[in-house]
Amino acid sequence: MSNHKKLVESITSRDQDFAQWYTDLCLKAELMDYSEAKGFIIYRPLGYAIWEQIQKYLDLEFKKTGHQNVYMPLMIPESLFQKEKDHVQGFAPETAMVTTTGVEDLAERLIIRPTSEVLFGTHYAKIVQSHRDLPKLYNQWCSVVRWEKNTRPFLRGKEFLWQEGHTVHATAKEAKKETLSMLKTYEKLGKDLLAIPFVTGRKTEREKFAGAKETYAIEALMHDGQALQSGTSHYFGNEFAKAFDIKFTDESNQIQYAFQTSWGVSTRLIGAIIMVHGDDNGLVLPPYVAPTQIVMIPIGSNDDVNQTVKKIAKKLSKNYRVLVDDSKKSPGWKFSEYEMKGVPLRIEVGPRDLENGVVTVVFRHTREKVQVAIDELKTFIPNALKKMHDEMYVRAKTHADNHTYTAKSYDEFKALIKQGGYVRMSIADQKAEEQIKAETGATARVILKGDLISEICPVTGKKAKQNILFARAY
Amino acid sequence: MSNHKKLVESITSRDQDFAQWYTDLCLKAELMDYSEAKGFIIYRPLGYAIWEQIQKYLDLEFKKTGHQNVYMPLMIPESLFQKEKDHVQGFAPETAMVTTTGVEDLAERLIIRPTSEVLFGTHYAKIVQSHRDLPKLYNQWCSVVRWEKNTRPFLRGKEFLWQEGHTVHATAKEAKKETLSMLKTYEKLGKDLLAIPFVTGRKTEREKFAGAKETYAIEALMHDGQALQSGTSHYFGNEFAKAFDIKFTDESNQIQYAFQTSWGVSTRLIGAIIMVHGDDNGLVLPPYVAPTQIVMIPIGSNDDVNQTVKKIAKKLSKNYRVLVDDSKKSPGWKFSEYEMKGVPLRIEVGPRDLENGVVTVVFRHTREKVQVAIDELKTFIPNALKKMHDEMYVRAKTHADNHTYTAKSYDEFKALIKQGGYVRMSIADQKAEEQIKAETGATARVILKGDLISEICPVTGKKAKQNILFARAY
Repeated sequence: MSNHKKLVESITSRDQDFAQWYTDLCLKAELMDYSEAKGFIIYRPLGYAIWEQIQKYLDLEFKKTGHQNVYMPLMIPESLFQKEKDHVQGFAPETAMVTTTGVEDLAERLIIRPTSEVLFGTHYAKIVQSHRDLPKLYNQWCSVVRWEKNTRPFLRGKEFLWQEGHTVHATAKEAKKETLSMLKTYEKLGKDLLAIPFVTGRKTEREKFAGAKETYAIEALMHDGQALQSGTSHYFGNEFAKAFDIKFTDESNQIQYAFQTSWGVSTRLIGAIIMVHGDDNGLVLPPYVAPTQIVMIPIGSNDDVNQTVKKIAKKLSKNYRVLVDDSKKSPGWKFSEYEMKGVPLRIEVGPRDLENGVVTVVFRHTREKVQVAIDELKTFIPNALKKMHDEMYVRAKTHADNHTYTAKSYDEFKALIKQGGYVRMSIADQKAEEQIKAETGATARVILKGDLISEICPVTGKKAKQNILFARAY
Repeated sequence: MSNHKKLVESITSRDQDFAQWYTDLCLKAELMDYSEAKGFIIYRPLGYAIWEQIQKYLDLEFKKTGHQNVYMPLMIPESLFQKEKDHVQGFAPETAMVTTTGVEDLAERLIIRPTSEVLFGTHYAKIVQSHRDLPKLYNQWCSVVRWEKNTRPFLRGKEFLWQEGHTVHATAKEAKKETLSMLKTYEKLGKDLLAIPFVTGRKTEREKFAGAKETYAIEALMHDGQALQSGTSHYFGNEFAKAFDIKFTDESNQIQYAFQTSWGVSTRLIGAIIMVHGDDNGLVLPPYVAPTQIVMIPIGSNDDVNQTVKKIAKKLSKNYRVLVDDSKKSPGWKFSEYEMKGVPLRIEVGPRDLENGVVTVVFRHTREKVQVAIDELKTFIPNALKKMHDEMYVRAKTHADNHTYTAKSYDEFKALIKQGGYVRMSIADQKAEEQIKAETGATARVILKGDLISEICPVTGKKAKQNILFARAY
């Protein structure tokens, strides 16, 4: 057991220093490593496999709803990038540029895509002529580069993996519908796969995407009470279409500009999983997104035990992602190793268990142990995974609900924000938003619907206009 | 039928101008488009979907054999890149470099990965300490950038999509086994999925990968008699391990350098599919790699017909990738459209067919038409796809066999190379190889096993050492 203890002790406690706990966990659970290029990370097998599960889920959803995958170039000529004014202003400071091949300098600088609106826009202008060509519902899986100064694994990096959907429609109505439908898809991803209750809503003018008319987001509350924007869906109107000349002949033979959307989620979701579900023993993976759902550990080196483990594993592998660890390492080492790596269920099989025809099943999210008859595993496992998923979702939901407050005065707001969590407040305008950010570090996460909480903005004393959900955010 | 004809007429004939036929097909079948960044292409939905089928097949094979996916950064610091001398010399002229963010210049230039040996090498040096850590069998799916001057869609581009496997082993024997085993996997990909008979073998010293000890390749013969290197598998010995300090403690507690491999195939395979199977009517996709395997076209706008088509499509969709085109375009337009896009089977359903309880099935690879009873489709389709795949493989194999020659004199060699195809010849050394390249444009594809064809090298007059398979190549 000494190894077991040592490994567990080597992560900082979550409540003692959340930031250090997070970094420790990322490294110790072998999700990622730092690379030689500062601000760029290596996605190690476990980190990448979580991303693959997210990809699998979303790719199926996208295709079911008629989306097609494409791949646009990594590089954008600088002159092309500058076509849409707001967009370029938003991204220019953080663009990496290729200027030379080492042998000869390029005639024009090439920007490594920070996002691909301009590439899709240019392509759509070429391939869309008639209303019969619409809609085009494209998506791409790729990495993007943004020259961030302060980087943290999965949350903010100079490069990250994501999907970016870009669609073009004949009408504003259709494009708005697409924007909201993809937001729903992301919300469902949280509910079905990540066990994360996302708050969804529209972003304020200040927080919206560079060049978008409307931005919607999924937001999640981390264990430390800070929010994480976990995905966005944008409605562009026909502003990009005007800048990129995406026109079509409509049914009455009139030439019209097209309407566009874009939407994306990234490997930031891995950070959300860690910070919503993780604990002092390491990662806790929701069962449906876990690359390994069940780890089987034979106790002792008994032939009967090993054969039973293999037999059970073979059966379970038909429906679940199962790993058998029959290496020579001690059971204690293995327990802590797979707890650190967040494997949802651990099945221990010892000689005494076998005599009784049972195995010991340990739930990662509660560390609860139960004995289960081998004959009953077939029905036990799906129920256990379902129960686990639901409990993790409810636990995260309860945490978010318990840390969602309403403020009617600015003093109250400041005190609540300090203790962490979401705070609802009615405000007048962008000035109030900016003052709040400057004085409390909190930012507007989304605009809330419903009656105004207060008639007067507690920050500016002017007439309140909207309810906003605020939080400090990553 | 006028549209039908027009579309078909708009591709150059394959035998008239193969290069132009290829470019026409790439664009008209909507596999790709050119982008605003010169030498970079856009992978359109059909092109990307073919790549996804290849990915699916290989990813499963890789995982079945214990490989894990990871993701390494896009960028490599220049100083890191220069650690392995041969490797850097091979790639330096074609590296794109990030030097600035537009706001401030970088302290060190960053190279966009042309391949990731140095990234994997650096990571392995960190995570490998003991023989218990070995082997590590990693792969990544990504794009790489090489500053090629003359680019052609899928065959040679400034950016291409690929997978690159990088493994590290305790012994040379194990690493060599891995190198050859991945070569076999690629050969099987050709046999099972692409209907392409690859010639496999070791590359000459002149043609091997920069920094590798041994390079093995899969080569295919295109319709025009030129060869295409379609994938490679490299054995590195422990040279990279020495440069990157990948050491481990072996079972007798001795410190050893590790042995490495790398292997990759790319979207170049799409080019191979086009040039091996395509014809004057467009793309001809082997049935197992085709994103759409069956297109169903109702003839006339009869309710019974439409309902039958939907019913059949629903049933077939359980096992095959099926598309129904019930748009208002003319049947003739649709026929030529899906022929251009290479869909393996077309099922036409007209009112008269229905009366007889049959449908018309058209094979893309032969354009043969057969009537099939609706009740028999369930058994007909899998047999038809299998037959098609086998016939396409045999057709490609026969073409390659019929264009594989043996030369015993240099004059004979020159004449044979001129007419296109593979030519076997015994040569003495690298000098002979270089002279052949300079004088005929042919390069050594692979080293052939077996007895020498001639005792004396026909090029240099020196004692012959090896049999080489030569061809002009893309």
